[in-house]
Amino acid sequence: MMMTIPQTAEWLRQRDNFLIITHRRPDGDTIGCAGALAQGLREYGKSAFILYNSETTDRYLPYNQDYWAPEGYSPEYTITIDIASDELFPKNGSEYVGKISLSIDHHPSNTFYAQDDCLDGTCASCGEIIYDILMELSGTVSAVSAGCIYVALSTDTGCFAFANTTARTLRVAALCIEAGAPHMELNRKLFRTNTHGRVKLEGMIYSGLEFHCDDAVAIASITREMMESAGANEDDVDGIAAIPGSIEGVLVGITIRELTSTQDCKVSVRSSPTVDSHAICAHFGGGGHPMAAGFSLEKTVDEIRQGLLEVIGGFLPQQT
Amino acid sequence: MMMTIPQTAEWLRQRDNFLIITHRRPDGDTIGCAGALAQGLREYGKSAFILYNSETTDRYLPYNQDYWAPEGYSPEYTITIDIASDELFPKNGSEYVGKISLSIDHHPSNTFYAQDDCLDGTCASCGEIIYDILMELSGTVSAVSAGCIYVALSTDTGCFAFANTTARTLRVAALCIEAGAPHMELNRKLFRTNTHGRVKLEGMIYSGLEFHCDDAVAIASITREMMESAGANEDDVDGIAAIPGSIEGVLVGITIRELTSTQDCKVSVRSSPTVDSHAICAHFGGGGHPMAAGFSLEKTVDEIRQGLLEVIGGFLPQQT
Repeated sequence: MMMTIPQTAEWLRQRDNFLIITHRRPDGDTIGCAGALAQGLREYGKSAFILYNSETTDRYLPYNQDYWAPEGYSPEYTITIDIASDELFPKNGSEYVGKISLSIDHHPSNTFYAQDDCLDGTCASCGEIIYDILMELSGTVSAVSAGCIYVALSTDTGCFAFANTTARTLRVAALCIEAGAPHMELNRKLFRTNTHGRVKLEGMIYSGLEFHCDDAVAIASITREMMESAGANEDDVDGIAAIPGSIEGVLVGITIRELTSTQDCKVSVRSSPTVDSHAICAHFGGGGHPMAAGFSLEKTVDEIRQGLLEVIGGFLPQQT
Repeated sequence: MMMTIPQTAEWLRQRDNFLIITHRRPDGDTIGCAGALAQGLREYGKSAFILYNSETTDRYLPYNQDYWAPEGYSPEYTITIDIASDELFPKNGSEYVGKISLSIDHHPSNTFYAQDDCLDGTCASCGEIIYDILMELSGTVSAVSAGCIYVALSTDTGCFAFANTTARTLRVAALCIEAGAPHMELNRKLFRTNTHGRVKLEGMIYSGLEFHCDDAVAIASITREMMESAGANEDDVDGIAAIPGSIEGVLVGITIRELTSTQDCKVSVRSSPTVDSHAICAHFGGGGHPMAAGFSLEKTVDEIRQGLLEVIGGFLPQQT
């Protein structure tokens, strides 16, 4: 059943013993919202834990690790957050496929895999929904929950700079600050601190950027060797796919990265509205959104670059 | 006289023929607020112009150039915005020293050089004050004014990531978006677009970063040669002083830049709360705030780096 915010709050009020599930390769939205909801439910007197997610990076550990379910925790109700499809469950969440009580999500593409749903596709971040649910549930959002929600809002919008940011996002962020979210410290940690690895890697990426098709296409390559030489880890490549597309005049920014875990290269495509990122990636068996998409292939960086350059011209706007 | 927002609105209501003055090396706050006020006053039926400011960069031209006063414009009242002292007037504003009718400002250090003042030192950006003044004046803020105020708010807070951002800043930004500020386009232009010059320059800076004092001190050098080789201009170095200080573990980030206009080097110091940037710069004849200060010297980059390294240890926290 699709539920409103008041219905969702009432649903939570009438139940207990919750397990909250975050998605694969967890980002600040799923992590921040899970932390905020677990904390809010506990403050309301409920038992709530978060399913351990082995892919949680150091950047996001502080907002979830205190809520991880102990071994053998047997929940009565399961809640997923920011998860559009049950294919995005973490590996240790596979036992819950088909058994999700409630999905709280902001993806219009949600596949309705849960028994009940609280969805709002107009939100930049699930944090906006969680804020409303907690206010409806208890009339208050604690400083701890507000801090977690601020993590969700700010990371899903690139600190309020991405096109998904709305007046509502900013207003909920303002309310979180007033509720005690340590926004100065969070902004410094999440947006104004670079690691040595990141700085070295960015230097290499900037120096190695290639431009094609009259500078309409920019390609950044990240090899395993670069990652090693920079001493960079997964946290350090967060958001790096935005770099080539951010350059003046570039219509398509492509980042080709050799993964360290497999033989695959991961390709991220970011484009202006005049170019269809999804179509480019679909050509290589991937997909995504019109302005942000991706694909993976077991090929070398050079082979992928070559393959892209052979077809990319056909996806650019026709010169008039 | 110090005036409240309602008093300032009434002051404007009773007068006409305004000249608005922006500060030297104008930033988004002075520019955005001047544009918003000129537009708002015109919509209210007043005559209002902005004093031409020759240092306005391409980045900020769109928000002011349509309001520049024609030659021979003879104002009845002069209003400065975001100007703490009359030493910060642009060169062609020197004739107005001692003749300023109203100063609208958010610097606690304002020297009260104007006849009347509307000051609020708690604001991250003068844009917050201008929004309130326009609402009080006419009960509305047009999309054009809201766009200019959004420029002021967002640039003075690093798109809401700097420590000066408050709940109020975010709330006023939300109101501006609702009033029609094209925030997606503005965010893209102001925060998510890099020029080729900037990208090349950042690559060189990242690759050339030096670390000293057990990595507590990071130094970036920008020579004239680097600027030329990158094809970088003044807009391209905007905010670049934040780079060395943003690196994990760095307590003092120093940027030494050879100016293209004079033989001077400009030095920017950014520090964590445990180090006094002002004291470091005062040692070299400069100054500023505890966490952000600067100085200029007619010496080479190497001489300045050497001079800094000789004394910087004394400004670091004592090891315990």
